[in-house]
Amino acid sequence: MLVSKLFTHTQKQDPKNEEAKNACLLTRAGFVYKNMAGVYSILPLGFRVLQNIRRIIREELQTFGAEEVYLNELQNKETWSVSGRWNELKDVMYQFSDSRGKDIGLATTHEEVVAEIAKNYIHSYKDLPKGIFQIQDKFRNEPRARSGLLRGREFEMKDLYSFHADEECLDKYYQKVMEVYIRIFGRLGLDAIITNASGGTFTRDFSHEFQVISENGEDTIYVCEKCHKGKNKEIVAGAGVEDSDLVVKCDCGAEMKKKRSIEVGNIFKLGVKFSQAVGLNFSDKDGNRNPVIMASYGIGTTRVLAAIAEVLSDKNGLVWNAETAPYQMYLIDLTGAGFGLSENLSDVVLMDDRDASPGEKFADADLLGIPYRVVKSKKTADKVEVKERVSGRIEVMEWDKFLEKLKRE
Amino acid sequence: MLVSKLFTHTQKQDPKNEEAKNACLLTRAGFVYKNMAGVYSILPLGFRVLQNIRRIIREELQTFGAEEVYLNELQNKETWSVSGRWNELKDVMYQFSDSRGKDIGLATTHEEVVAEIAKNYIHSYKDLPKGIFQIQDKFRNEPRARSGLLRGREFEMKDLYSFHADEECLDKYYQKVMEVYIRIFGRLGLDAIITNASGGTFTRDFSHEFQVISENGEDTIYVCEKCHKGKNKEIVAGAGVEDSDLVVKCDCGAEMKKKRSIEVGNIFKLGVKFSQAVGLNFSDKDGNRNPVIMASYGIGTTRVLAAIAEVLSDKNGLVWNAETAPYQMYLIDLTGAGFGLSENLSDVVLMDDRDASPGEKFADADLLGIPYRVVKSKKTADKVEVKERVSGRIEVMEWDKFLEKLKRE
Repeated sequence: MLVSKLFTHTQKQDPKNEEAKNACLLTRAGFVYKNMAGVYSILPLGFRVLQNIRRIIREELQTFGAEEVYLNELQNKETWSVSGRWNELKDVMYQFSDSRGKDIGLATTHEEVVAEIAKNYIHSYKDLPKGIFQIQDKFRNEPRARSGLLRGREFEMKDLYSFHADEECLDKYYQKVMEVYIRIFGRLGLDAIITNASGGTFTRDFSHEFQVISENGEDTIYVCEKCHKGKNKEIVAGAGVEDSDLVVKCDCGAEMKKKRSIEVGNIFKLGVKFSQAVGLNFSDKDGNRNPVIMASYGIGTTRVLAAIAEVLSDKNGLVWNAETAPYQMYLIDLTGAGFGLSENLSDVVLMDDRDASPGEKFADADLLGIPYRVVKSKKTADKVEVKERVSGRIEVMEWDKFLEKLKRE
Repeated sequence: MLVSKLFTHTQKQDPKNEEAKNACLLTRAGFVYKNMAGVYSILPLGFRVLQNIRRIIREELQTFGAEEVYLNELQNKETWSVSGRWNELKDVMYQFSDSRGKDIGLATTHEEVVAEIAKNYIHSYKDLPKGIFQIQDKFRNEPRARSGLLRGREFEMKDLYSFHADEECLDKYYQKVMEVYIRIFGRLGLDAIITNASGGTFTRDFSHEFQVISENGEDTIYVCEKCHKGKNKEIVAGAGVEDSDLVVKCDCGAEMKKKRSIEVGNIFKLGVKFSQAVGLNFSDKDGNRNPVIMASYGIGTTRVLAAIAEVLSDKNGLVWNAETAPYQMYLIDLTGAGFGLSENLSDVVLMDDRDASPGEKFADADLLGIPYRVVKSKKTADKVEVKERVSGRIEVMEWDKFLEKLKRE
């Protein structure tokens, strides 16, 4: 792709009315556009990152047979009334009447919907376990939209829902998802800490959150540097308790340190709350009818985009890894001789063909966060200068050698 | 994939409260679930088809450098007020106030939004032409939801928007999209007829629609069997005129035949309506400021899913081609010896491992519309019986030979 053909340009200044680092950087780099408070459009470079995030999640979830679905955003009041959540969530769920007087909500989550749908397909223990997931927009009427794309009113999430005949099966599946989540966040380049959190309204068990340490995070967690495990504030101190003076010990005995963090994923055992509400039952081997046991597992995909921008960026701009980057290399030719690119590279290469100064081009390569900047100049003669974005390391090498190296990685 | 592991089952009976053929078939086959009137969830098998439709569109649009974006569903009243469409569209746009009294709309389309975003990036003739597209949900407050997934209140569309400095550039781009659309519908297995239609509020030029002949279609078009071109009813008779006795001639002189059809795509020259409204101007070579010329190009992705179900199905069920099919082959082993499948086939194979009669398995293979049904039985000995879904043609051949044949296709 030629830089001159990109839909967006970079901006030198931070946008007005934007405080969060992720929103400032992503806007300056042309990855996102703010439509209104808490609502962003994802522009082409940002979309390529989002597609990579989606792809990584899909690849990992498919390894254990979870199937993808695409659920309704317009929600039926009746569906949400059986669980009582039409009223419980009315402060955060956008709810309105259409011109025929029918009550409609916008999806904040889909537990009721998947339980209702599953009723048509799960009848016997032979139909269990099952897992379905969706990667879609969710809507939340946040009282105060803040932190850029970290806490918006419209955002994209991956939600996986699993269905089980017994606790043992649930526990095994839950453990497997936990392992897959560690792989997913690893591929995304995020060092996610698993924390115990309260089960909320769903279960008396702990639920688990995946937290990324960040100075601008909204959550407070305690982390054991020895175990790399964490506990969130509510678990440690109880809701509303001042925790500034608490000494928190890890299960291993070491003292835990307090840090700010971003929640990028969470996993919940839902138990039988929703299956009982909608009447999602199955016949066991003896012919007895029991409610299906459920769990749900979220990852905020647009929040991951923002979290990477928060924690992996530096003073020069964004930093993507090879898995998430919109393009793999940013080419700058100061000689006019060209790189002699083959067709099959066009999808991984950004070629800066603009009539701009070398300094501007260097700055944009950094701001966009492309993993490798490759410069051809008089100084490099028949070689190229390769700068690795994440380390800043510079190496002069043959162009073909660099391409080979990239292929091996 | 094992059939026993699929989230869905097939149903023998048509669903209640569903008249449209597409909705009946897709529901019976487990591809979709109706959440409420005009709102459907896409279940795993349907999602695999939808992903194929999206993939085909993406591949074709990327051939001319269009970049993908992901735009806001929650719409700002201010954005839509500059064009006057906040009020004009209030009958079809879901509009409501949030708890802070802010007016919000749900996206019916995105012309205002893309024009507003483009203002940040298009300043000079050097920034033109540009093309961006989105594949996303749109919402329409239809007075009467009908025709299953053909006319819903929530549906997915691909919309491409192009930006130009002059009419000549627009015309060239428009022509190119027309050719790409023909390729897209060809790959989707749909015989789309290009019809002249009125430009609506946008332009005095004709716009173009892509129509698929279908007995249950909602549109009326006149088709020339010689040219394979069409005109829609409004063009022929004018809105509201009774056209039952009209004799319509094609430009080539042949008489055109009246047929019912489904609109699967449309392309519009928007002119400067939206760029003037939002102040999207560019400097030409002489430094003069002019409004950017725009066009928009739609394909209903969930409508395509439904249109294929309408027009390519038969009395036994759905029929997908190799490009759209959720899986390529449906395996039935009546011997217990197995097929000896290699790992890399698992994503294209449905293996019916259920404890069900051969007749039930044969019926489901047909209903799901998988391109090839492959049966291993005593009768086939060390070979397999391959039935092509679309033609019903049956051939007994070696399993390896069949796999090679599939690879070649």
